[in-house]
Amino acid sequence: MRDYSLYVLTDEHLSRGKSHVELARLAAEGGADVIQLRDKHLESRQLYETALEISKICRQHDVLFIVNDRVDIALAAKADGVHVGQGDIPAAVLRKFVPPDFIIGVSAGTAEEALRAEKDGADYVALSPVFDTSSKDDAGCGRGIEELKKMKQAVSIPVLAIGGINKDNIKEVIAAGADGAAVISAVVSQEDVTAAAASLKRLITEVRGT
Amino acid sequence: MRDYSLYVLTDEHLSRGKSHVELARLAAEGGADVIQLRDKHLESRQLYETALEISKICRQHDVLFIVNDRVDIALAAKADGVHVGQGDIPAAVLRKFVPPDFIIGVSAGTAEEALRAEKDGADYVALSPVFDTSSKDDAGCGRGIEELKKMKQAVSIPVLAIGGINKDNIKEVIAAGADGAAVISAVVSQEDVTAAAASLKRLITEVRGT
Repeated sequence: MRDYSLYVLTDEHLSRGKSHVELARLAAEGGADVIQLRDKHLESRQLYETALEISKICRQHDVLFIVNDRVDIALAAKADGVHVGQGDIPAAVLRKFVPPDFIIGVSAGTAEEALRAEKDGADYVALSPVFDTSSKDDAGCGRGIEELKKMKQAVSIPVLAIGGINKDNIKEVIAAGADGAAVISAVVSQEDVTAAAASLKRLITEVRGT
Repeated sequence: MRDYSLYVLTDEHLSRGKSHVELARLAAEGGADVIQLRDKHLESRQLYETALEISKICRQHDVLFIVNDRVDIALAAKADGVHVGQGDIPAAVLRKFVPPDFIIGVSAGTAEEALRAEKDGADYVALSPVFDTSSKDDAGCGRGIEELKKMKQAVSIPVLAIGGINKDNIKEVIAAGADGAAVISAVVSQEDVTAAAASLKRLITEVRGT
């Protein structure tokens, strides 16, 4: 089973000047299970080179590496997978040309969307956003813990949650059954990225009692 | 042998309000041999849906369909290939994960760059820009007909030319040995896109005497 427990998205706009690569390294050292590279502005060559570096770091730390939206970059940099939203290429289309073990993650706002993603061949879904968030401009209102529970009942693939998750509410998310908590500012905006990741990871472990 | 003779790039900013799909249809009706979809601004899903429509049009007209930069969009929409510049994913990297018959075109400014592209697995190179152009902001100065001739001698794959080609100089480009002429404004900015494509195609045929 793949472990999506602590899933950290790199974001250079929220990182106090740290690069994607630095963020990935620091978060991996803190115990992140997944790193997602998300950048909507870099030229393809720069994004590819960034992904290539993060890919190496993730392999060294035995961390899954996911690229947001750009399947071409993910394939080129030998990432483990891609994460797509409703504005990206549909999962069912991607499934036709990526390798069989390539991870496809899909953002879903409701249990119905999650079920459709599962049928389309998604490997995991992420309830987005579970809480209100300021890290993503167009995220909309938090869907809440009840929607997370409904999503868990609706699908058999792992269900993550993203949006507004921090040290004060991560236990609630995991206790509600989330297979992973995806965070941005709760890790990348912190003074000590590694410590922030380690601390969230500890909270997850505490809830699960493992 | 693939025919790259008249190669039209869609560009919604230079098209007097016509969409990528309209441009592709009109240019294909005028006899374009290749259509390239280039858009650096559309969201992935919109770009994919646009590519899917153009892909159908091109198949109907037996026209090659190439997507600029975004290999993922090209694969998703079953385009014939991708065109990459020096700021995109390197051709040698792409070659590892695209199907064997998938076309990879590469922009080259010099014969040396063209030779490297050929070694990297490119199916064609495009001297860019052959003349000064206003259609692409960052294109730089025209490399000229002499560089085109050098490029033709340096590589065995087809050599196209792009940049500032219009009805007044297209014969010079073809006479110098170019396997194709790639145009933007000379087709897409014209009142009658189909007639403009047909007229350029006729000039190419005249030079070749076929």
